[in-house]
Amino acid sequence: MPHPDASAFDAAVARQARLTKPAGSLGKLETLACQFAAWQGRAIPSRLRPAITVFAADHGVARSGVSAYPVEVTAEMVKNFVRGGAAISVLAREIDATLEVVDVGVAADFDPAMPIVHAKVRYGSRNLCDEPAMQEQECEQAIEAGRAAARRAIAAGATLLIAGEMGIGNTTPSAALICALSGARPVDVVGRGTGVDDQGMARKRGAVEKALLRARTTDTAAGWLAEVGGLEIAAIAGYYLEAASAGVPALVDGFITAAAALVACGIDIDTRDWLLASHRSRELGHELALTAMGLEPLYDFGLRLGEGSGAALTVPMLQMAIRLHADMATFAEAGVSDRDHE
Amino acid sequence: MPHPDASAFDAAVARQARLTKPAGSLGKLETLACQFAAWQGRAIPSRLRPAITVFAADHGVARSGVSAYPVEVTAEMVKNFVRGGAAISVLAREIDATLEVVDVGVAADFDPAMPIVHAKVRYGSRNLCDEPAMQEQECEQAIEAGRAAARRAIAAGATLLIAGEMGIGNTTPSAALICALSGARPVDVVGRGTGVDDQGMARKRGAVEKALLRARTTDTAAGWLAEVGGLEIAAIAGYYLEAASAGVPALVDGFITAAAALVACGIDIDTRDWLLASHRSRELGHELALTAMGLEPLYDFGLRLGEGSGAALTVPMLQMAIRLHADMATFAEAGVSDRDHE
Repeated sequence: MPHPDASAFDAAVARQARLTKPAGSLGKLETLACQFAAWQGRAIPSRLRPAITVFAADHGVARSGVSAYPVEVTAEMVKNFVRGGAAISVLAREIDATLEVVDVGVAADFDPAMPIVHAKVRYGSRNLCDEPAMQEQECEQAIEAGRAAARRAIAAGATLLIAGEMGIGNTTPSAALICALSGARPVDVVGRGTGVDDQGMARKRGAVEKALLRARTTDTAAGWLAEVGGLEIAAIAGYYLEAASAGVPALVDGFITAAAALVACGIDIDTRDWLLASHRSRELGHELALTAMGLEPLYDFGLRLGEGSGAALTVPMLQMAIRLHADMATFAEAGVSDRDHE
Repeated sequence: MPHPDASAFDAAVARQARLTKPAGSLGKLETLACQFAAWQGRAIPSRLRPAITVFAADHGVARSGVSAYPVEVTAEMVKNFVRGGAAISVLAREIDATLEVVDVGVAADFDPAMPIVHAKVRYGSRNLCDEPAMQEQECEQAIEAGRAAARRAIAAGATLLIAGEMGIGNTTPSAALICALSGARPVDVVGRGTGVDDQGMARKRGAVEKALLRARTTDTAAGWLAEVGGLEIAAIAGYYLEAASAGVPALVDGFITAAAALVACGIDIDTRDWLLASHRSRELGHELALTAMGLEPLYDFGLRLGEGSGAALTVPMLQMAIRLHADMATFAEAGVSDRDHE
């Protein structure tokens, strides 16, 4: 995997010190501009061209009462994405991003004419409590669907990749993966998802504990992904792996994408160099997963929606960080006195 | 002063519950959309038209070694704003805001043809350690310059007002005002500003203590403003008062604008209903000032630049909150199943 460009980073740091502002006064925006310099390999990075890819799939475990919503919502929301009525649809327009929806495993048939990527591996993953959620070959097929989506976005000119997801029940496999890969306990990771009640929470925690016990001899990230993951989570892991291979940064959104990022980093630790955390989700265990990767969220708006929404919301901040870096005058250019250096 | 429209707020809350997302999953963005509904008096608020006004002035106390920068920088930065090279110039373009610069008291002469508002009250305020920073009439004139700027922006169609400031030394009068109006101690409020060293910090704290002692019999917010404030701070207080009178929301930026907001709330407590905090500055005492007004910052990017920059950075988030509220489909419109209501 390629590495971010350290000399472009250093050149960007040097430029920041010459811009007409007290050194460091733009806080995290300065760090972000320098990070994008390293990612793009130039001292003054270009305006980002963001691509959003939403991966949708269903989950056998969703039939076990672990979600506040019926499983039909996955397919219904896919149609909502396409018609432009979902949160991520609105945000994609607002941040001028492309939006592609990939069916990697929704438990419903879509009209083949519907403008989504039809890459269904199967009608939802199996129930992770009772058996491996995916066979190895199914899991690889889903990872490849994610890789292909990243390649398409990059070929179309994207310089920032955003993965989103839709899958009723998918905080359960995500929690199982985070526990398996970080060593955290289910009680610290299993949260309310879309808003499950106390009984649902108990069922959800029970499902995660059962899955972890069932698959306890698993010893690789890819193995855990097949055992307790989900098809859209596998696709997102592939998406991140491909972004890193191509040297294109990708934003991590909420709980599910953080689980997928952990898997990708477990498969190849260098993936981490190309990931940027966006927000701190209200979902229990999200920050724990980010911390396990050494990622720090940029803000906390109390979001817990998914779809890539929290990552999309970050994009204007990133664009402004880059614009400030590129367009502000230096002390010399503006004829402004720098501080009295003793 | 007008009050935000409670029935529009309630209608907006009701709409949020019908949009295709788990209730509450957009966190603070939901609250923001409803706040703007109340401010605009309609269930679905319109896209914001932001206006930025940067008020510039100098400070007698700046000659006492309380800043890391020479006083000439105030005038030099005014020219930088006009030429488009300052952070706020870049951000104004990025968020599609108008940008007006008002000289209320810079200690230098500008070419009358320079495209700023020439409203100089005097060549900087007096040294607050030794005498009242402004005479009552000068202070009123500065407040009126701020009110006039708000009226101009609103007449030109602005629906969100952003005050920024430039004035070498202005964290010193701001700290004095925050201490005077909130009861906080200088040790909890005096910070490093643009980056003063330890000796400068000691001089700065000494200056604030001396000013507070000198003016200790003062008993009104307007009185404190004249005694220990500054011309741009007075103008910003006027700007906020006028925004509130006109029923137009205004964003509070960093430490200096928070001090001005405290003054405005001290003059008329209902000003607070029209203020929205943007970020938590790295400057000591900023959050304390916000808390004294019951305001909560939206994010913390470690900024300490001023100019209105932190407030400008917030605007895309606000626009996205409003767009999500306006453009997302409801469960009924999208044919998406709502959660199982027991």
